[in-house]
Amino acid sequence: MTQNRWITLAHGNGGRFMRELIDDVFARHLGNPDLDVQADAVSLHLQGDLLFTTDGFTVQPLEFPGGDIGCLAVHGTVNDLAVAGALPRYLSLSAVIEEGLEFDVLQRIVASLAKAAKDAQVQIVAGDTKVVPRGQGGGLYLTTTGIGVRASDNEFGMNRIQVGDCLLVSGPVGDHGIAVMLAREEFGLRGDLQSDCACVLPLTRALLDKPGLKFMRDPTRGGLATVAYEISRATGWRVRLSESAIPVHDPVRSVCEMLGYDPYYLACEGRVVAVVASDQAERLLACWRDLPQGARAACIGRIEEGPSPAVVLETELGGERFLEELEDDPLPRIC
Amino acid sequence: MTQNRWITLAHGNGGRFMRELIDDVFARHLGNPDLDVQADAVSLHLQGDLLFTTDGFTVQPLEFPGGDIGCLAVHGTVNDLAVAGALPRYLSLSAVIEEGLEFDVLQRIVASLAKAAKDAQVQIVAGDTKVVPRGQGGGLYLTTTGIGVRASDNEFGMNRIQVGDCLLVSGPVGDHGIAVMLAREEFGLRGDLQSDCACVLPLTRALLDKPGLKFMRDPTRGGLATVAYEISRATGWRVRLSESAIPVHDPVRSVCEMLGYDPYYLACEGRVVAVVASDQAERLLACWRDLPQGARAACIGRIEEGPSPAVVLETELGGERFLEELEDDPLPRIC
Repeated sequence: MTQNRWITLAHGNGGRFMRELIDDVFARHLGNPDLDVQADAVSLHLQGDLLFTTDGFTVQPLEFPGGDIGCLAVHGTVNDLAVAGALPRYLSLSAVIEEGLEFDVLQRIVASLAKAAKDAQVQIVAGDTKVVPRGQGGGLYLTTTGIGVRASDNEFGMNRIQVGDCLLVSGPVGDHGIAVMLAREEFGLRGDLQSDCACVLPLTRALLDKPGLKFMRDPTRGGLATVAYEISRATGWRVRLSESAIPVHDPVRSVCEMLGYDPYYLACEGRVVAVVASDQAERLLACWRDLPQGARAACIGRIEEGPSPAVVLETELGGERFLEELEDDPLPRIC
Repeated sequence: MTQNRWITLAHGNGGRFMRELIDDVFARHLGNPDLDVQADAVSLHLQGDLLFTTDGFTVQPLEFPGGDIGCLAVHGTVNDLAVAGALPRYLSLSAVIEEGLEFDVLQRIVASLAKAAKDAQVQIVAGDTKVVPRGQGGGLYLTTTGIGVRASDNEFGMNRIQVGDCLLVSGPVGDHGIAVMLAREEFGLRGDLQSDCACVLPLTRALLDKPGLKFMRDPTRGGLATVAYEISRATGWRVRLSESAIPVHDPVRSVCEMLGYDPYYLACEGRVVAVVASDQAERLLACWRDLPQGARAACIGRIEEGPSPAVVLETELGGERFLEELEDDPLPRIC
C-alpha cells in the first residue's frame, strides 16, 4: 500500500508508483478476472452486431449531490449505448489525474465508478492513467469508451421520424445541471436537489422491441432543447413542445427563475427522450410509467410541418417562443 | 466556418459552436462515411477474435520534432493492438481542449492524427470533445480507444517466456524521450533528433506467424528498462541486457551523458521489444532487419535463472549494474 496521501507526478511515470496506483486504487475496485493490468490489449468475448461510443468527463466539482465523475463516466457511456439500442458489455477507462489530488477522493470516485459498472452489468476491461502537473488539470478527467451488442431487430434512428410523431421524456429535466451548479461553492446556494445521474437501460429496454419506437436520445449537454433542435435539423421538420407538459422539479424551476436559466437547456444524466408513432404513444408512455425511473414520464410535444430547423415552445400562457440553438454556455463543465 | 481564432468555453457546450468545432476541425480531417457525428453510438463491422485497448495522451509540448500529440495518440493505441497480435480496425477519440488553444494548432494536430490513422488503415468512428477553462488543461489531452482483430493463431504472451529466450529490440531506444525533452524550451538545447513516433505494424506483422515468437511490447513510458522489469516480474526470471548490444543514437547518448539520464528508461514510440526462442532469434532478427523500420534491430539480452524481479545490465566495461524499477520521473508527460 502506498504511503502517499496525494497523487504525485511519479504516479504517472510507468514505474513502481504507477503500478501501485493501479493496484491499490483501480484494480482493487474494478477487480475482475478479465482486467489484466499487464496486457497491452485484452480479448473480448462478443457475438452479434456491435455498437461503439466514447465520452470524456470533466465535471466540476468531482463530487456533487446524487453522483460524482466516476458514476457519471459509466452512466454517460452506458446510456449512449442504451439509447442506440445496445446492451452495453465492455468499457475502457482512461484517467488524467492532476498532481495533488487526494488519494481518498480518488478512492471514493473509483469505488463509485466500479459500483455503477456492476449495476449496469458492464465490465471495465482496459484502462490507462496519466498524471499532469498541478494547475494543468481539474483534479481528474475521465474518458470511457463502450462496446455493446445490438439488443433488438427493431430498426430506429432519426431517419424513421415522421410528421405527427410524438416526443416522450422519461422524467423531469434539468436536475443534473442544477445539482452540479448548486454544488459549486461560488453560488452560495444549497438545496436538497440531487442529480438524476443514473443508468437508463431499464427505460430503453422497456421500449426497444415495441412497435412505434422511432428514435431515442439522452438529453445531456445542451438538454432537452438541444435534442429537439438536433431532431429538427436532421429531419427537416419542426419540433413543437408544450411547456405545461414538460416535467420539471419545483426546486429546479425555482433556481432557474432566480438565476435566469432555462431548464430546457440544462443537462440531464438519467433521462431519455423518445420519438414515437402517435398511435403508439399512450402505450409506450404506459411502459415507462410502470417503471420507478419513468413514474413522471410525459408526452411533451410532436413533429410538425414548418420551416426548419426550429423548436417551438407553447408557453403555459398560450403564447409561443422559439428555443434557439444553444450558443452561450449556461453552465460549463456539467459532464 | 467559425470566425474564432481560439477555442472558447462555448465550443464545449453541446450547441452551435461545438457543432461547428466538430464540423470544421474533426469531421473535416477525419471525414469518412462511417463517422456519424449525430449518432450516440456507431455500428462496427467486425468478425473474429477482438482485442481492445485504451490510452491517454498528455505530452508537452503538443508538437515536437518528428510528431505531435495527434499522431502519437493514433500510433500509441495502434501499437498496443499491434504488439498484442491484432490488426487494428477502429478507433474512438476523446479530446479535452483547454480554452484559449489556437484553432490553427488544433487543425494541424487533427490533420496529423487523420494522416496517421489513414496510414495505419484504422478508421476513427466515434468521438467526443470537451472544453475546460483556461489554466485547467495542458492545451489538449487526447484519449484513443482501439479495437482490432487477432491476426494470427500464434499464441504468445508473457506466459510463453522461458529461460534461455532472447530479447530483441527493433531499433535505437530513447529517441522520443529526448526529442520531446529538447522541444521543451526550458532546456535551451536544440538538436536534429526526431521522435521515433511511428506505427509498428510492419514490425509486428513480420514476426506474427513465425515460430519462436513468445512476446512483444512497445517500450513507451519507462522505456526498455521498464519492459525488461515487467518481464522479470511476471515470469519470475531475471533479464540480462548487454549494454554494447543496445542501439542508441549518438545524439541521445550525448544528451543523456550531459544531463545524467539513462537512455534505457526513456520512452520510445515506434519500437518493439520481442522475446523469442533462442534457436529462432537470428532468423527473426533478420526479418526485422529486412524492413526499413528494423535496419538497426538487435539482439540485446536473454532470460536467465536468478532472483527476481531483477534486470542486470552488462556494462561496456565488463561490469554489471542492476536496472531498478523506475521510481522518480526522469521526464514527465512524455506521452
